[in-house]
Amino acid sequence: MTPDHLQQASIILQRINELASISEIPGTTTRTLGTEAFVKGRALVAQWMQQAGLQTRIDHIGNVRGRLVSPNSAGKTLVIASHIDTVVNAGKFDGPLGVLMGLNIVEQQIKESALPFHIELIAFCDEEGCRFHTTYLGSKAVAGHFDNSLLGKQDSTGITLQEVIETMGGNPTLLHQDAIPVEDWLGYFEIHIEQGPVLYEKDIPVGIVTAIAGQKRVAITFKGEAGHAGTVPMNMRSDALCAASEFILEVERFANDPAHNVVATIGTLNIPHAASNVIPGEVSCTLDLRSADERVLTTCYKQLEQLGAGICQRRKIVFDWKAVQESNPVACDATMNQLLAHSVRQSGYEVINLVSGAGHDAVAIAPVSPVAMLFVRCFKGISHNPLENVELKDLAAAVNVSAAFIHLLNQKYNPG
Amino acid sequence: MTPDHLQQASIILQRINELASISEIPGTTTRTLGTEAFVKGRALVAQWMQQAGLQTRIDHIGNVRGRLVSPNSAGKTLVIASHIDTVVNAGKFDGPLGVLMGLNIVEQQIKESALPFHIELIAFCDEEGCRFHTTYLGSKAVAGHFDNSLLGKQDSTGITLQEVIETMGGNPTLLHQDAIPVEDWLGYFEIHIEQGPVLYEKDIPVGIVTAIAGQKRVAITFKGEAGHAGTVPMNMRSDALCAASEFILEVERFANDPAHNVVATIGTLNIPHAASNVIPGEVSCTLDLRSADERVLTTCYKQLEQLGAGICQRRKIVFDWKAVQESNPVACDATMNQLLAHSVRQSGYEVINLVSGAGHDAVAIAPVSPVAMLFVRCFKGISHNPLENVELKDLAAAVNVSAAFIHLLNQKYNPG
Repeated sequence: MTPDHLQQASIILQRINELASISEIPGTTTRTLGTEAFVKGRALVAQWMQQAGLQTRIDHIGNVRGRLVSPNSAGKTLVIASHIDTVVNAGKFDGPLGVLMGLNIVEQQIKESALPFHIELIAFCDEEGCRFHTTYLGSKAVAGHFDNSLLGKQDSTGITLQEVIETMGGNPTLLHQDAIPVEDWLGYFEIHIEQGPVLYEKDIPVGIVTAIAGQKRVAITFKGEAGHAGTVPMNMRSDALCAASEFILEVERFANDPAHNVVATIGTLNIPHAASNVIPGEVSCTLDLRSADERVLTTCYKQLEQLGAGICQRRKIVFDWKAVQESNPVACDATMNQLLAHSVRQSGYEVINLVSGAGHDAVAIAPVSPVAMLFVRCFKGISHNPLENVELKDLAAAVNVSAAFIHLLNQKYNPG
Repeated sequence: MTPDHLQQASIILQRINELASISEIPGTTTRTLGTEAFVKGRALVAQWMQQAGLQTRIDHIGNVRGRLVSPNSAGKTLVIASHIDTVVNAGKFDGPLGVLMGLNIVEQQIKESALPFHIELIAFCDEEGCRFHTTYLGSKAVAGHFDNSLLGKQDSTGITLQEVIETMGGNPTLLHQDAIPVEDWLGYFEIHIEQGPVLYEKDIPVGIVTAIAGQKRVAITFKGEAGHAGTVPMNMRSDALCAASEFILEVERFANDPAHNVVATIGTLNIPHAASNVIPGEVSCTLDLRSADERVLTTCYKQLEQLGAGICQRRKIVFDWKAVQESNPVACDATMNQLLAHSVRQSGYEVINLVSGAGHDAVAIAPVSPVAMLFVRCFKGISHNPLENVELKDLAAAVNVSAAFIHLLNQKYNPG
């Protein structure tokens, strides 16, 4: 890391702070798709791209796109991107970090001799999906597989996605024109905060993402028999909460076994008509199961279902198991990751490989392009929270690594 | 059981049905203290008492009281009672069964030669405590330990207990005048549905209550650390729900051990800010612990607290344990229970001794009088529910047993 890297990091951080101050809820950072704050934040990012010398435009879905066209290119484009929408009461770094790190890469690159590929910097408009309970609207449009049936989706106030796009100035019938043709992709590179504690615990500023975990979400119901907490003897009970508790512990034990290579979480649990003096007759809960390995995910899903069914059979509880959502794991590109690992080592850091348990726009891009992601350490892994934080020196480390990465890509694709 | 017992049971059932039809919510049985339906139901019971030839009055708190005065009495009174208030959407039997069984006892007794004691039949006005979240208001007044500070309590609409008493025609400053002097009590006898499944499972119509369980209610909080369900590795989690689940299973195991002689229930469980993709950072729940043995209750309470603290220490979870309510166990009178057992055997039934896990007015009376309770089997133990049911033949069995009981009391106290 050089003073120059720190200097660049300092400008990046300044921009992150400036963007974070644009919010639909004063005193927080909140920019969901299509709100006034979102449009204002987007305009600022577009202005920065323009000032950097990029061919800047806003596409129909609402992404900001800035191209650095290279005369030496063989027609291929490296996309560097992340998102500028946020959750409600968000942190400053989730999304904007990658966009503004990307802006810095381009600003530095412009001073150098032309690359053997174009660069397109994209600020995706909707990764969090808070307004329409969707995922990756912006990146799906760029990858060319946006699902038009989503246009009719309504937000909580009844406004459709189509109306939001039109209000922002986009034309919902022309979304397909914004896709980058499959043959034009050189690769996709995203820098993002880890949103987990591994780098923080290991005391290392950056990590390389090997895969983005697939996910299965299950709605589970345990049906026993409600009863008076004082009058039903212990051996005559069918307590749904006790069955659920046994399942929760078994899930924890299962996922703790390193052989299984999954993370599993019971995040919600509800007892309808609960009262302190009533034996729980019914419990509903959700299971969130993730793994980078699709086969493992499928196997574990079945094993946990059997485990729950077994517990309930023994306890005379009715067990209901219903899949409610799933996404397949996405592997990052081995060749790009080799170059990234080389860059990390060159920059003087230990190479840490991570599986991303959270989803990212790279998931939507993966069907059309090799993807790579660099994670940056965040304070205690806290994210989706105003306490989300990244240290300046870690931003500088990421600047260092990404500069080296672009340099290696240049070498790789340069025919000279 | 004779055809005469069945005949009496049939009249009791008819009256139970008639009283059940008087409700503040049409289509349900709901009579909480002081409502129009309550006052109407009370008037019906008073009318029945009057017709039976009892000296009938309504006391200041709102109980209906009918005295059968005996010229042969040495001044002592046997109180036969239960309650006529109900929970919301109640069953027909919880409370009224005891009052109308008592009415029948008195009606039969009037045909016989005078007893060596007076009988006072009481329909208590507020056992369930639904309106003011109190317990035993009616029986506490009769026992002479009504707490006047309760008069200021408000219902959900802001009306005070004092106002309700005044609206019903009572004088809140004269409640003490309605207490039966300690020296006048011969005993207290209450017939009630079991509200549990033991008699139903054993296929026996009646049971004798040896004690009413004491109760401790505890509010428990587990504080761990919330986190992203995808990004926090299993071995870095402080999952509050897993800790709570371990505790719930340990509580179940503990109470299942017959050596412990308690029932324990986690009836409510809440995860603030729960989401399917967030590791639960906090869980609050309630523990309901009951035992007929005060020493056991105290010991188990401490053991469970230590157990929870141990689990949380191991899991790095902050454990908070707060007692929110407690009542001491009440033992029924051994002498009265001997007579009851004799009556059960005479009537041709097996003697089953039960601990009442639910509270009853007998708890409020016990400080001033020996108490005894006869439980009647109810369908599957279901109570506080429109499905609550008692078979006619079981009512007849209770008629049979209680007639024998009064006969034995007569023999015991008759100096002749």
